[in-house]
Amino acid sequence: MSKSEIVIALDAMGGDGAPDVVIRGANIARVRYPRMRFMFFGKESAIVAGLAKFKRLKSVSTVHHADAVIADTDKPVQALRQRQGSSMRLAIDAVGEKAAHGVVSAGNTGALMALSKITLKTLPGIGRPAMGSIVPTVRGESVMLDLGANIDCDSTTLAQFAVMGEVFARNVLGVREPTVGLLNIGTEELKGSETIRTAAATLRGSGLPIKFHGFVEADDIAAGTVDVIATDGFAGNIALKSAEGTARLYTEYLKSAFRRSLFSRLGYLLARPALRLLRERVDPRAYNGAMFLGVNGVVVKSHGGTDHKGFANAIGVAFDMVSQGINPKIIDELSRLELAALPEPKRAAL
Amino acid sequence: MSKSEIVIALDAMGGDGAPDVVIRGANIARVRYPRMRFMFFGKESAIVAGLAKFKRLKSVSTVHHADAVIADTDKPVQALRQRQGSSMRLAIDAVGEKAAHGVVSAGNTGALMALSKITLKTLPGIGRPAMGSIVPTVRGESVMLDLGANIDCDSTTLAQFAVMGEVFARNVLGVREPTVGLLNIGTEELKGSETIRTAAATLRGSGLPIKFHGFVEADDIAAGTVDVIATDGFAGNIALKSAEGTARLYTEYLKSAFRRSLFSRLGYLLARPALRLLRERVDPRAYNGAMFLGVNGVVVKSHGGTDHKGFANAIGVAFDMVSQGINPKIIDELSRLELAALPEPKRAAL
Repeated sequence: MSKSEIVIALDAMGGDGAPDVVIRGANIARVRYPRMRFMFFGKESAIVAGLAKFKRLKSVSTVHHADAVIADTDKPVQALRQRQGSSMRLAIDAVGEKAAHGVVSAGNTGALMALSKITLKTLPGIGRPAMGSIVPTVRGESVMLDLGANIDCDSTTLAQFAVMGEVFARNVLGVREPTVGLLNIGTEELKGSETIRTAAATLRGSGLPIKFHGFVEADDIAAGTVDVIATDGFAGNIALKSAEGTARLYTEYLKSAFRRSLFSRLGYLLARPALRLLRERVDPRAYNGAMFLGVNGVVVKSHGGTDHKGFANAIGVAFDMVSQGINPKIIDELSRLELAALPEPKRAAL
Repeated sequence: MSKSEIVIALDAMGGDGAPDVVIRGANIARVRYPRMRFMFFGKESAIVAGLAKFKRLKSVSTVHHADAVIADTDKPVQALRQRQGSSMRLAIDAVGEKAAHGVVSAGNTGALMALSKITLKTLPGIGRPAMGSIVPTVRGESVMLDLGANIDCDSTTLAQFAVMGEVFARNVLGVREPTVGLLNIGTEELKGSETIRTAAATLRGSGLPIKFHGFVEADDIAAGTVDVIATDGFAGNIALKSAEGTARLYTEYLKSAFRRSLFSRLGYLLARPALRLLRERVDPRAYNGAMFLGVNGVVVKSHGGTDHKGFANAIGVAFDMVSQGINPKIIDELSRLELAALPEPKRAAL
């Protein structure tokens, strides 16, 4: 690959609409990112047939046959043992072999995380990578992690999530001095579990140039109180899905309000262009693409049920992470967190 | 009190706008529930002055002086030891002494729970009462518990929450055969913590006439997938507050969409009556009033920042619980859960 090219490996068989959604999504990404090249992994005949409709995309793509497909119902351990030649596995391998800069899959989340960890390894000092996502807020955008990859987290893991999220916000979201909060059920220092309180103490005492805000509550997420929300995967998943469900409920309410009378129908027609903008802002596809932070390589998980527009956005997340060189920056920041965690005399001796 | 009267004890000093919000809220409730009588607890002079404006309310109310007020910053243990004669304490005592059927307070949540447990005790077999709330869904209304009173819950506690929520949904929401779900981060049986999975097994094997749906995810809450969502207080609080934050975000988006052009402003004017309905449906005041389930008495917590309309709704929740005789029904159902949990031979011997 040439120096200016960014190569993205795509698991063409992952997700509900594979491989069509993947191919059509890549075609949107191709227009957005002219530097991008694509490696498709999966059933060769199906991919080639799909690409036939998109000549320009075909000209910047390579196709790599994979016999097996990891099913959504496969356990991670099955995916590891029994699906050696799967499309997901080979796509990740391409990143490990430096043939691609990043990988995007809409397949089995647990398998993608397990394969990424084993194949690409984690960044130095990271025990457990996190799954993060950009989330919409009243102020703009924030990043939240973990979203479900790690149900139980110790305080060190939570502190690492906070640091990785901060590096992401600074480099990908372009926030100069991102503020960081730990998700809790109250903002007072004594609230929440021992683990969360220890994580807060670690971040406060880290000496890192991080603007640690302290605890935030779940309504602070959409309020944009902080740029980075760090949490364990259980709470993060609950917060994210509760927000998704509420957005759908609100949309239902709005629809039924407009249907209520002749006047409200007319009002809808007049406001339609503006409401289209609203629809775009609450469209979950706009925020599709969860990044695995802490893996030694760029891995992005697309929602399995998204369409080509959503998949293109997930490719965009991978592009941003590659072009901003996110991982070396995380390594640098984390090494400073470790230094800060050492007792005073040792630190002086280094 | 006469047989048909329902007497509600009010902590007149709890909440940001006390005692005005409490008095004005009671006045709304008085019109809605002609059977209702009120006992106000707090600073006598302030309450009497406030009641002077509401002659009819005054005629169905009694005023009981309390010297102390529990502050929002008080720890529960302080509230117990140092605020013996507090307005909250005396209002709860009124329920314990059978002078009132239920109590409503917008004061310190932790203190209200601690005082309720100590003064009123818990229902037989209940170790930890839950804080629950009615939540809006696409299908109508569901009940969710716990919302933050119990951070860590064992599986028995979660199963008890499910049973209490089911009784509430059947009797207060009027659902004939309420479906019950445990909040998790996936619907597969193997998802989530050991605790949640054991709780699911308990409910499946309980033999109770409960329609146990299994696990639900946080987007199922607003979707109305089940009538009862049982969860520990950490996840419940995260889900509830994430929903609140998202509703506010959506409202912001909607406002800015309508402000966008002359046409959209005109559209807003035409649709305004219908949109007012939408506003009412997403108004958090409509769902104000968290009930303590598992306490041997009716205790309702109003949001501290609500206004008189919200406070009136919290009184309404207490009214419904009293008039439906919720606690004897919970006792009955829970005793059957205990029977079901006994090993076979013992059960036969009973």
